[in-house]
Amino acid sequence: MSASDLAITDLNDDLRPLVEGVLDGEQLSLSRLISRIENGAPGYQDAVKTLHDHTTGTRTIGITGQPGSGKSTLVDKLVDRLREQDLTVGVIAVDPSSPYSGGSVLGDRVRQTSRNEDPNVFFRSMSARGHVGGLAAATFDVVHAMDAFGKDVILIETVGAGQNEVEIVRAADTVCVVAIPGAGDDVQANKAGILEIADVFAVNKADLDGATATAQELQQMIRIGQDLERSDTDDPVDDPDTWVPRVELTAAIKDEGVENLVDAFDAHYAFIKESGELAETRARRFEQEVRTHMGNELDQLADAVAEARRDLLAADADVDPYTASEELVVPFRRAVEEYIDDG
Amino acid sequence: MSASDLAITDLNDDLRPLVEGVLDGEQLSLSRLISRIENGAPGYQDAVKTLHDHTTGTRTIGITGQPGSGKSTLVDKLVDRLREQDLTVGVIAVDPSSPYSGGSVLGDRVRQTSRNEDPNVFFRSMSARGHVGGLAAATFDVVHAMDAFGKDVILIETVGAGQNEVEIVRAADTVCVVAIPGAGDDVQANKAGILEIADVFAVNKADLDGATATAQELQQMIRIGQDLERSDTDDPVDDPDTWVPRVELTAAIKDEGVENLVDAFDAHYAFIKESGELAETRARRFEQEVRTHMGNELDQLADAVAEARRDLLAADADVDPYTASEELVVPFRRAVEEYIDDG
Repeated sequence: MSASDLAITDLNDDLRPLVEGVLDGEQLSLSRLISRIENGAPGYQDAVKTLHDHTTGTRTIGITGQPGSGKSTLVDKLVDRLREQDLTVGVIAVDPSSPYSGGSVLGDRVRQTSRNEDPNVFFRSMSARGHVGGLAAATFDVVHAMDAFGKDVILIETVGAGQNEVEIVRAADTVCVVAIPGAGDDVQANKAGILEIADVFAVNKADLDGATATAQELQQMIRIGQDLERSDTDDPVDDPDTWVPRVELTAAIKDEGVENLVDAFDAHYAFIKESGELAETRARRFEQEVRTHMGNELDQLADAVAEARRDLLAADADVDPYTASEELVVPFRRAVEEYIDDG
Repeated sequence: MSASDLAITDLNDDLRPLVEGVLDGEQLSLSRLISRIENGAPGYQDAVKTLHDHTTGTRTIGITGQPGSGKSTLVDKLVDRLREQDLTVGVIAVDPSSPYSGGSVLGDRVRQTSRNEDPNVFFRSMSARGHVGGLAAATFDVVHAMDAFGKDVILIETVGAGQNEVEIVRAADTVCVVAIPGAGDDVQANKAGILEIADVFAVNKADLDGATATAQELQQMIRIGQDLERSDTDDPVDDPDTWVPRVELTAAIKDEGVENLVDAFDAHYAFIKESGELAETRARRFEQEVRTHMGNELDQLADAVAEARRDLLAADADVDPYTASEELVVPFRRAVEEYIDDG
């Protein structure tokens, strides 16, 4: 049951040349394959399956922050620095804020066009529109496509407003949270959450007043968080196996401090490779992907059962929603019990 | 299989007195029962089931808008107007922006305390924290509890940043989108989405410059949307069966324009009752609730299967995520096929 059971030659006439093109390093094929993934074109899952044997586990960096934190500019400058290191870069900008329309399309075009001269940068934005299997699944698939294409680093940029976006960005190897001066209250309100997901903080727009104070607040929060953790584990000495989130000041628009940010990313990546955390992150991400796909398949099966039992879903069925749901889940429950009993 | 198969006397010792208290109109019982729902206390689903026969289908009004639009103040003033009509009011303020902590708790206390004198207003906030079955399911359950308690109107307030919140608010009978002057670009970016969900627009902070212009922009968008719809349906005349979203100017902080907003809500409610749209909305909501509960139950079953097949979820399984998922879904798929074949 290895992934290679399905060969590229088994793919349909639409997808086969695209997968071949991606493996040959053709940008246009990558772009088209991603469109197929986004639109849920027939067979796109098979195409992603065949890419599996050609992926190497490309390094991913997630970058999130509230709207207005200058994330996009920062990502552009990060790309410049990574290109100077001769790394090829993929950028996935996920904008889930508008559930209905690709609101960021205009901005995307501007960003993409400015990169058109450099064939070693591939930029792609994704809105919440479409995505039969959900935005998270589509993002994972695009990461695999860019990985198989041969990108050295993939940046995943999200507007960090909700739970879904946090889920997407925290699947990256390294997570950078972008804050801005004076955002102390926001940071405070989200304290637990931000401390939990950030490996590196960028205090962007550091040319504005209060940048140092915000950086200090973040440092203090990090210290408090670590003290709490230590007291939880009864470990009185500093644990060398724990990464201490780094805080870097950047002014992306002036191209200042970005190198230090790249240094912090590199240090974190070296640390998690050494400590074994990278392997854990990857294992968690794999499991998360499988569960996401399972959820989508189960949704479709639930559609079929619900369709067969319209009587229970009619509002005049005189049944409460929990009871109706339990009734509809009966065949699933029985099957799982049998499956697990059979070992 | 009627809901009444389960009697209140069947509930456990923790929940039985709370359900009895809710049906007797005791605020404290309502508050405690909602906490049980939020925390997923043992048997809470049974408690919600037993409320079903005591619900009347209370009118619900959803109110959403970007942070900073003055939603909370507007909701407070709406409550005042509804109380003047001698209606009892429940308010559910859903704040999903922080996935980890109840960031809005302080603000809630202030709001709740200011209402403490009036026993006919019940205010409850919910963050994304906890909620075993998801925030949408918990919100529905709280609506049922407030309905069974006897509230005449329930206001559901969300910060309309993401897809989940939109799903919650659009389940209400009437949806109000709160905009502010100068928000034209935002509105424009979300054009399709906002037109789709809004029955009434409140241009709040109407004492600021540009309020009239923003209202006109919205009116124009509504007209364009309706022209598009008409050209889709080849119906050249104005369709009296279509609700035209109303746009009202409000300055909640000065208590101005709120009465007109209530009028617009009432007009919309009368319209959907007359046109049959209310019945459709309710049917859709019931189905959405059932499907949400099904999704949660299927998730738990998927947990059990995944646990039994750790081999497929190990990252070194040399299998791609789609193939692993398909394998894990096999027992579910077989069961559904048999179930549907059996009729």
